[in-house]
Amino acid sequence: MLHVTEADVKRLLPFSKAIELVREAYVRLARGEAVNPPRVLLSVPGGASMFFMPGHVYGQGSVAVKVARVNAANPKVSLPTVLLTIYAYDAITGVQVAEVEGEWLTAVRTAASTAVATDILAGKSVKVMGVFGTGREATTHIPMLRLVRDFDKILVYSRDKGRRELFAEKMSRDHGIPVVAADSPRRVARESDVMVTVTTSDTPVFDGRLVKPRSHVNAIGSATPEAREVDNELVKKSTVVVDSRKQALETYGDIIRPIREGAIRESEILELGEILNRKMKVVHRASDVTLFKSGGLAVLDAMITDYVLGKLVPQERAKGARA
Amino acid sequence: MLHVTEADVKRLLPFSKAIELVREAYVRLARGEAVNPPRVLLSVPGGASMFFMPGHVYGQGSVAVKVARVNAANPKVSLPTVLLTIYAYDAITGVQVAEVEGEWLTAVRTAASTAVATDILAGKSVKVMGVFGTGREATTHIPMLRLVRDFDKILVYSRDKGRRELFAEKMSRDHGIPVVAADSPRRVARESDVMVTVTTSDTPVFDGRLVKPRSHVNAIGSATPEAREVDNELVKKSTVVVDSRKQALETYGDIIRPIREGAIRESEILELGEILNRKMKVVHRASDVTLFKSGGLAVLDAMITDYVLGKLVPQERAKGARA
Repeated sequence: MLHVTEADVKRLLPFSKAIELVREAYVRLARGEAVNPPRVLLSVPGGASMFFMPGHVYGQGSVAVKVARVNAANPKVSLPTVLLTIYAYDAITGVQVAEVEGEWLTAVRTAASTAVATDILAGKSVKVMGVFGTGREATTHIPMLRLVRDFDKILVYSRDKGRRELFAEKMSRDHGIPVVAADSPRRVARESDVMVTVTTSDTPVFDGRLVKPRSHVNAIGSATPEAREVDNELVKKSTVVVDSRKQALETYGDIIRPIREGAIRESEILELGEILNRKMKVVHRASDVTLFKSGGLAVLDAMITDYVLGKLVPQERAKGARA
Repeated sequence: MLHVTEADVKRLLPFSKAIELVREAYVRLARGEAVNPPRVLLSVPGGASMFFMPGHVYGQGSVAVKVARVNAANPKVSLPTVLLTIYAYDAITGVQVAEVEGEWLTAVRTAASTAVATDILAGKSVKVMGVFGTGREATTHIPMLRLVRDFDKILVYSRDKGRRELFAEKMSRDHGIPVVAADSPRRVARESDVMVTVTTSDTPVFDGRLVKPRSHVNAIGSATPEAREVDNELVKKSTVVVDSRKQALETYGDIIRPIREGAIRESEILELGEILNRKMKVVHRASDVTLFKSGGLAVLDAMITDYVLGKLVPQERAKGARA
């Protein structure tokens, strides 16, 4: 059995390839050529919440299940809030073939998914990207979205002033683009053409009324039934697209609560895979905003894990042959 | 992280302890002190079917998920039909603590579950045990059921004459009790006071009309929506008890089909944990048979895994201290 490390994933998975794989996973799922059963949640009172996320793309050599463990108190004992492991099995025999460290893979596939959505939903001539959050996923989103759009500037906001300034400085340096720490969420909401919220917030992170017409918002952080990253004002004026309608209606507060509160009807929600599959153009009124809400699909992990294993297995074989 | 082998499990888990743990798991689940979310199934067309089974008993140190992979064609490539791995995580932080080889543990917990059911549902003075099947689970059921009842004789039937004779011979020798290979299912059904079906059959393995009044049947093999081990005749004259009502109504052909065919009503089905928890006595008419149908609960795996890890971790620590 292979043990696949974060370093292996970094080495074997270029960002552009991740975008291609994620787009294909959405299309295959929309065509019924992949399976993404509802994730299972198990919560330990006073302890970790765990998600079990199996997925498979028909015809691929492996089935993957991602096991996510989340405990906001983990940093107190020097552990990450979220721990992610992906187990891969031979699709025919079921023999376990690999255990994959899942944190980097997830941050990449999530940003790739946002890039796929942004590519199809955002206008072509955008100038400013706005980012809420400074965690690992914020780090992957900045270079990833630049693969689908040219930005002049990136605005970053998070509640901790020191952290957002450090993050902006590092991102500017790493990616050779002006990244500015904004003093308020208001500034980011007003000036951005494309926004990404990658937070663990329970309440909306900006005022939806401030968002410019024809801009595009990706809300891809908190995805539990009571948590929200965006408000009803934004949802009301948006064409809403989700990664999975079923998962959205069961688990995303950003979808469940606006429906419950009458800000949007269930029938108005579109699914990204359907749009990609039918090569639909999302036509919206001039004043409209597009909103992509995503909590992450197991089938994306399965698609990417299978790709990484495919790159790794011949190398392992070659090593064996030389030994 | 610990890698727990079959040999570790054999060494650390006495059969009598397994019965005690399984009984406690059923009671804790019935009291709402454990979680056993619905198992997730993922089927690969032309390949393996995989079940993901998370479970946890509140207050225990670990959460376990069993991943079962089943492919009836595996023996053609010298692999077992069923592959079972249990992953255990720290209940508070979510850190993975162990990977456990699950085949023996499952065979023991399944037999222990049957023993718990038999202990509470079968008459006290029984003489003959009948077993359908000669696989690993048949092997654990014979010594396990002898811990809750005294039998004079055991009858065994499986379709392959050579295999059932070998199995009977080996079991007689290993356990010092007459184990007889029966020439027909009819003989087993007619003569047994307690029966166990541990088969992968899709169709009933004996004629329910032949079963003696007041006998007890454990149907614990096939548990998919279309498969049956017992017929409507048996179900009609039985008090029916299941390991989980929810799981039974969703996945056990032996429950779903008799309901659909009018042989029994959903409301008549009892749950083992409720009986154990309320210390209910299952009162039945003189002519009645009791039937226990079980497909296996993740919470039993979680309970036993936690016990095995508890036995192992101090040993590992002691080893570390000596090193």
